[in-house]
Amino acid sequence: MDVPIPEILQTPMEVDEMIMTGAGPSNYHPRIRHAMSLPVLGHLHPKTFKIMDDIKIGVNYLLQTNNSYTFCISGPGHAAIECAFVNLVEDNDIVVIGSSGYWGIRAEDIAKRLNADVKVINKELGEQIELEETRIFFEQYHPKVFFLTHGESSTGMLQQNLEQFGNLCQEFNCLFVVDCVITVGCTPVYVDKWNIDVAFMGTQKVLNAPPGISPITFSARALDKIAKRKTPVKSYNLDAVNLGEYWNSGNRPRIYHHTVCSTLLYGLREAIAIFIENGGLEASWKNHENVAKHFYTLLEKNGLELFITDPKNRVPSVTAIKVPENIDANEIIKHSMNEYNVEISGGIGPMLGVVLRVGLMGINCNEKVAECVAKILIEAIKKMKEE
Amino acid sequence: MDVPIPEILQTPMEVDEMIMTGAGPSNYHPRIRHAMSLPVLGHLHPKTFKIMDDIKIGVNYLLQTNNSYTFCISGPGHAAIECAFVNLVEDNDIVVIGSSGYWGIRAEDIAKRLNADVKVINKELGEQIELEETRIFFEQYHPKVFFLTHGESSTGMLQQNLEQFGNLCQEFNCLFVVDCVITVGCTPVYVDKWNIDVAFMGTQKVLNAPPGISPITFSARALDKIAKRKTPVKSYNLDAVNLGEYWNSGNRPRIYHHTVCSTLLYGLREAIAIFIENGGLEASWKNHENVAKHFYTLLEKNGLELFITDPKNRVPSVTAIKVPENIDANEIIKHSMNEYNVEISGGIGPMLGVVLRVGLMGINCNEKVAECVAKILIEAIKKMKEE
Repeated sequence: MDVPIPEILQTPMEVDEMIMTGAGPSNYHPRIRHAMSLPVLGHLHPKTFKIMDDIKIGVNYLLQTNNSYTFCISGPGHAAIECAFVNLVEDNDIVVIGSSGYWGIRAEDIAKRLNADVKVINKELGEQIELEETRIFFEQYHPKVFFLTHGESSTGMLQQNLEQFGNLCQEFNCLFVVDCVITVGCTPVYVDKWNIDVAFMGTQKVLNAPPGISPITFSARALDKIAKRKTPVKSYNLDAVNLGEYWNSGNRPRIYHHTVCSTLLYGLREAIAIFIENGGLEASWKNHENVAKHFYTLLEKNGLELFITDPKNRVPSVTAIKVPENIDANEIIKHSMNEYNVEISGGIGPMLGVVLRVGLMGINCNEKVAECVAKILIEAIKKMKEE
Repeated sequence: MDVPIPEILQTPMEVDEMIMTGAGPSNYHPRIRHAMSLPVLGHLHPKTFKIMDDIKIGVNYLLQTNNSYTFCISGPGHAAIECAFVNLVEDNDIVVIGSSGYWGIRAEDIAKRLNADVKVINKELGEQIELEETRIFFEQYHPKVFFLTHGESSTGMLQQNLEQFGNLCQEFNCLFVVDCVITVGCTPVYVDKWNIDVAFMGTQKVLNAPPGISPITFSARALDKIAKRKTPVKSYNLDAVNLGEYWNSGNRPRIYHHTVCSTLLYGLREAIAIFIENGGLEASWKNHENVAKHFYTLLEKNGLELFITDPKNRVPSVTAIKVPENIDANEIIKHSMNEYNVEISGGIGPMLGVVLRVGLMGINCNEKVAECVAKILIEAIKKMKEE
């Protein structure tokens, strides 16, 4: 053989149990782990279709929509952003993006690669996108698509007034795309009521499900725009009409679009079932809000500062904590992992070194875990200040 | 709530054990199922990086390459085709595609969506792409990229002479992309020796690993073309340079590109380890060839015809069997599933109703399974002829 058998693969891999309280993925529930150990099903088997249908119904509940074109992308959350833009945007279409964190920057990059004419409402990191400044952009540019991040996992910010932005989009005949990756399940999201045209959510956050499969929904208005495209959607993989047909949307028979991973379907199906057994959206919103508030109090009474100062603008699932002066964020992350097997995230993009991020999501959203992580953080910072 | 809690998710999902002898996915090995029940790891954790590095080394062995830019796409095999084209092609670049089955048609669709100027060597279904006709296309069009499917899972065809096509591409300074989804592990593939610039493989075929994660490799020549692009790669998700940085290729530090699903990594890592324990490529090639031959004999001596008539042009992993006259392929598939829990695939695309497809791959590649499936097929056809 030109390339010999590698020795490295003859040693078993190492996987540890950890408390996953970074910005995600969060811990799998034991039942989800069991589900993922089940035998594979074919991508066109009736039992697979039944699980896909169940997931679709579950996602429509989570997103509070009656859309028919709700399905999962076989790919990460980044693919969901790309799916929104690649379907809605043609060359030189004007897209307005509200940006005050990593996900705004990422959306800008993705839309520009697709040759959209992107106008960015550029705010300071962690700042709210305001309705009035957005209206000015709309009046000037008359965009075809408007993008907002509901929960900015990089800054811990919760964007307010989505319903008003939805109304603004209706007024200007603009499609409204919202990144709900870290908000679904921890704070209200009403896709239909708020006139959101494309929304996508994370699986590996509040749901404790595996990443790699990303639920997304398209409104009738979005599909109408797609139907009127003059050029083909630039991606076969992310073509919403074809994906919808595989996921039994619309009125056409199911088609073979790609080979969905049944293991990821099992994990997601089980996660939604557990979420519902635990009381569903209202119970989960309340729990995430209560635990987050408890966590804020623990941190603040020990002298730590949160990056988002106004409590109502904080997203309950992911909290961004300012790195104290003269402290190396990486040392805290390492301390937490090495001493306690507890994962805390650092900052990403422009937030690198600025914040530490803690996610208290799903099965990790309880006072005990909140107190444990707060204690570790406070202890680590104290230790480093003494050194 | 606008959308109430759905009742359907309050009933457990149903997953059955089956013998997965369709065109893929194939059965998971029990050890792979166990691996996928392990706890989640973060997408930036050192243990995740170690598993990614191991997979990379394993994939380079499987593809017989020393490429540095070898990584996995978090997505299906279709995303791998798209990854090849979206990175190598700019608007109006000439792409030549050899097409005699579903995957040629699919590649054509994907390349056209990306605004490539696509020239198709259109052959009858199941026919070999010939070197001399390809040379004529090269002389006429001087393509930037040439695409071939090594194993056409739709027709059961094994494309010959890849090394000569590789030399032709070198001669014309054209990049050579090869779909090796169903060939890696069942028949020789030598990426470096054959001058293949981009090759991708399936996980859910010979490896018995989960689908949804797709290994792909880029040659230095391919990377050089990417570096000289005048326009950005149209997909963030499939950007080979960024993906390579996440997967520790090149000389730059690792970056956060997307959240890889650790569960799929575990499954793939374990699958490659098992493959190596069982003797690696040479042992697997020999086994797949022997079992396939045994299977052909069983079918032919019972009057069934294979779609590919010349035995040397048959791919050992997936066998396409002509549907006998006046027989409904779907009835045979249903009979096999309902009576025996054995999956057999129908035809896809232009092969729908023309063939039945049997995959004897990895743990299902043995005489017992071959005999079982042959018996079921023969029995079902006999029964239907009598009715």
